[in-house]
Amino acid sequence: MPELAFEDFTPGRVFDLGTVTANREEMIEFARRYDPQPFHLDEEAGRNSVLGGLCASGWYTSCLWMRAFYDEVLSKSTSQGSPGGTEFGWPRPMFPGDVVRATAEVVSARESRSRPGLGLVEMRAQMLRDDDVLFRSQFTGMFAKRGA
Amino acid sequence: MPELAFEDFTPGRVFDLGTVTANREEMIEFARRYDPQPFHLDEEAGRNSVLGGLCASGWYTSCLWMRAFYDEVLSKSTSQGSPGGTEFGWPRPMFPGDVVRATAEVVSARESRSRPGLGLVEMRAQMLRDDDVLFRSQFTGMFAKRGA
Repeated sequence: MPELAFEDFTPGRVFDLGTVTANREEMIEFARRYDPQPFHLDEEAGRNSVLGGLCASGWYTSCLWMRAFYDEVLSKSTSQGSPGGTEFGWPRPMFPGDVVRATAEVVSARESRSRPGLGLVEMRAQMLRDDDVLFRSQFTGMFAKRGA
Repeated sequence: MPELAFEDFTPGRVFDLGTVTANREEMIEFARRYDPQPFHLDEEAGRNSVLGGLCASGWYTSCLWMRAFYDEVLSKSTSQGSPGGTEFGWPRPMFPGDVVRATAEVVSARESRSRPGLGLVEMRAQMLRDDDVLFRSQFTGMFAKRGA
């Protein structure tokens, strides 16, 4: 049985997901494939944009959070995926070399009405560079109950 | 001047982003790096999960939509990125080989109060396999005004 089942996601619990460093090469490679807007690929285009410099695609920032969440929470849990969420945002851009701290907080939890054995956990994701929020989201995680 | 400036994003306008095919190898490679939950990596783990089979990470599904949006809209526009959105979801899983149709619809548009020359466009994203919704989102896009 994994360490974390539905019952362990109690409202208010905060998971520290550690720090992540934004790797310049990977950031650009990701953008080239999925989001090749000039300010995600090129220094000068970044400086000339609203974003102020070459910066990560928001999807890349999200994916870095996701991997930290997998490493510290999902990999030790009864996770059954996610149907989505109600908020996602990148209030400040992530730049190459940024060292960011990732967290996940339990907002609320309830049993699934349609699937016995499954629980729905509302969570708040955040990624910070010092006090700047680079990523935040509120979403639902599905977790099997203990012994289900 | 790009073909699409803020003024071209009129409420109700729908952009057909064409079809995308979910590539099995890329889907698994993406999951291995960013979201290595067993049902995103392995057939049997997928069959034994709520999801019913080996399926894409929702982040991968989102990224495929993003690339189609870039190709058909952003690359021809005055896009200045996105601060985020109010909804994202994957009502049904995406399986390897799925052929999906992507669209983007303008919900509303307004001028930025803090940045003259910039407009904020509320958009609805969708990706469909026949009538099944595999991805949907509502988010804000930032676009420079014509001649700004």
